[in-house]
Amino acid sequence: MANVNEHYLKLKSSYLFSEIARRVGEFQTAHPDARIVRLGIGDVTQPLPPSVIRALHEAVDEMARAETFRGYGPETGYDFLTALIAKHDYDTRGVAIAPDEIFVSDGSKSDSGNIQEIFAADAVVALTDPVYPVYLDSNVMAGRTGSADDRGRYPRVVYLPCTADNGFQPPLPDRPVDMVYLCYPNNPTGSVLNRTQLKTWVDWARQSGAVLLFDAAYEAYVRDPEIPHSIYEVEGARAVAIEFRSFSKSAGFTGTRCAFTVVPKELMGRTAGGERVSLNALWFRRQSTKFNSVPYIIQKGAAAVYTHEGQREVRALVDFYMENARIIRTGMQAAGLTVYGGRNAPYIWIKTPPGQSSWDFFDKLLREAHVVGTPGSGFGPSGEGYFRLTAFGSRAHTEEAIARITSRLTR
Amino acid sequence: MANVNEHYLKLKSSYLFSEIARRVGEFQTAHPDARIVRLGIGDVTQPLPPSVIRALHEAVDEMARAETFRGYGPETGYDFLTALIAKHDYDTRGVAIAPDEIFVSDGSKSDSGNIQEIFAADAVVALTDPVYPVYLDSNVMAGRTGSADDRGRYPRVVYLPCTADNGFQPPLPDRPVDMVYLCYPNNPTGSVLNRTQLKTWVDWARQSGAVLLFDAAYEAYVRDPEIPHSIYEVEGARAVAIEFRSFSKSAGFTGTRCAFTVVPKELMGRTAGGERVSLNALWFRRQSTKFNSVPYIIQKGAAAVYTHEGQREVRALVDFYMENARIIRTGMQAAGLTVYGGRNAPYIWIKTPPGQSSWDFFDKLLREAHVVGTPGSGFGPSGEGYFRLTAFGSRAHTEEAIARITSRLTR
Repeated sequence: MANVNEHYLKLKSSYLFSEIARRVGEFQTAHPDARIVRLGIGDVTQPLPPSVIRALHEAVDEMARAETFRGYGPETGYDFLTALIAKHDYDTRGVAIAPDEIFVSDGSKSDSGNIQEIFAADAVVALTDPVYPVYLDSNVMAGRTGSADDRGRYPRVVYLPCTADNGFQPPLPDRPVDMVYLCYPNNPTGSVLNRTQLKTWVDWARQSGAVLLFDAAYEAYVRDPEIPHSIYEVEGARAVAIEFRSFSKSAGFTGTRCAFTVVPKELMGRTAGGERVSLNALWFRRQSTKFNSVPYIIQKGAAAVYTHEGQREVRALVDFYMENARIIRTGMQAAGLTVYGGRNAPYIWIKTPPGQSSWDFFDKLLREAHVVGTPGSGFGPSGEGYFRLTAFGSRAHTEEAIARITSRLTR
Repeated sequence: MANVNEHYLKLKSSYLFSEIARRVGEFQTAHPDARIVRLGIGDVTQPLPPSVIRALHEAVDEMARAETFRGYGPETGYDFLTALIAKHDYDTRGVAIAPDEIFVSDGSKSDSGNIQEIFAADAVVALTDPVYPVYLDSNVMAGRTGSADDRGRYPRVVYLPCTADNGFQPPLPDRPVDMVYLCYPNNPTGSVLNRTQLKTWVDWARQSGAVLLFDAAYEAYVRDPEIPHSIYEVEGARAVAIEFRSFSKSAGFTGTRCAFTVVPKELMGRTAGGERVSLNALWFRRQSTKFNSVPYIIQKGAAAVYTHEGQREVRALVDFYMENARIIRTGMQAAGLTVYGGRNAPYIWIKTPPGQSSWDFFDKLLREAHVVGTPGSGFGPSGEGYFRLTAFGSRAHTEEAIARITSRLTR
């Protein structure tokens, strides 16, 4: 029998969302009449913007005629899309990103999971805690950790706890690390980093030699002008940061799959022997060997996001979800709970009442209000005592959920 | 600076297709009036089938309304697609494959590049020579090889030479290996394995404990009823083989991106300690952590391939390309060349004339006939002295190329 990658066996088998599904299923079976409202998973509910729909139809028609049919496209995305990204997402913010620093992909989940492949097998990883599980799990699978302890912490990983005590601001690592995953606006806490805080990270990375893996999948939700949308708005970031972006949460592409990753050309790693190596070149090699880009049809749909009309429609979508965020935030406060996030992010991070663990609160909300959220402890040990709700539901479901919580939840 | 994955530096930097592009560009600059015909890259040219186009339009319309909008789908593909695959690609051939053994993906390139991640870092890999470069490069990047020698061979890799001398039939490995990549119908040689030959491989794998990584991306081109379309048509294969399939070359999806991989549930690997581990479970973990499935729109398009009309249209597409293959095969024979493949595969593998290397013949064809093919040596040392043409061109280009070769090529 072939030898397997044993690092996979270090992963905790009971994955957060399958445990949620199990408990919800059990409750629904016991209470078949309960109309359960789900504000747990961060999946959008509103249709694709009309300009995207039009562009998708046009692209499908192009695929129907030999003269306009498209086979294999450029491995890192069509020029028409990378040029639009460079112009609208970066140039308008005073950031110079060249089209060949942009790698179009099928999702930030894939990219943030795959990026670790270009780093050394013994590279040291720092993560915020709580954290989006993909950053951690992809490194466990690659063998950069030991086996998890009872609390679910993996040896060799540097955890950066983010709790109300430190205002959800991750402390700088207290020892040398190769890579740091930062997701801002943050999933799951809904917290943000302002320009000064980001500058601290960039300066630290320049000094320490670490690479920042900056997940900006939620940048469209930033309202405060003091909060950068891109890490490259901070001086010096081009030399230390890789940025992940997505159309999932801005234009509703969770089921349509288009994203991109930026790897600036001056960003360097090194060999054990001290030779400098371009991370842009390594990522190009990774993507051109193990990936074959995104459907032409989908890339045309993504390009429509950058039309005048597309931009207006995306703003309306984001406004819609941010109104949900406001409804959840004020509703939960009215219910006497302490609430974080939801101002520059689609996630609302709730402190569970004293004496209630994340899973206790999950069960209570399910039992009393028939509302499903996500236990904070599922995102890491420092998420214990917190609970995540998302703003991505329909208006009716969101209002219904909050009405039930405020009226039914016992103290 | 962060430490990089140094194994990437073992990859040869001058990639085959970029060297081809360089030589063609140079020739075109020197001869601006030459109308170059490309039969080099294996990319389709005919439009998507009408039933696929209709399904894509319908799915786009579903994404335009909240009631039918789809966000995140099942991580391994929608049931509507996996059920159709199980029924039409397997059940009709007497092969039992369950829907949860099928993993829908964005391409066989991705899957055949990523599959090695679930095997041990020190697993031993066997490859045919010549070979589709992704199988080799993905293992070089993962550190399973030493550095290439002057001939381009990597230590620790077990090469299985396939030349006219052995009828392009790979010999069984002469030492223990963990994984063997087999691509049949073969890219680049156009050769096939019949039932008896495949049975030899399955029996050997059962005995030796190796896993067969069977790339059947070109199965739609099999004409001979003695040639299996799936390795699972061979008894015992479920316990030893993973199969890769694609819509790229059957339904013209090279730019539309949909494929799938089959990992049977009885297929086991083992830990160093001897514990048995399900490869289906490992691949599920890999895909659900580092991938987020294929756009709903595209999966609906792929599903249309299995309608009565879709099946008829795909057969017509394949027939069209196979007529190109016949034109190339007979034309090259008429030009006095020895030709292999092109009967159950879209690739025609040509023996270069005595004294001419693969690149010599590339230059000669470009210079005298303005036709671009692919030098066999680009697929591995045993490809030296061969040359690949593909049947994926338009009819007009294919006929023009062959007319020029037969009339202009000097002996």
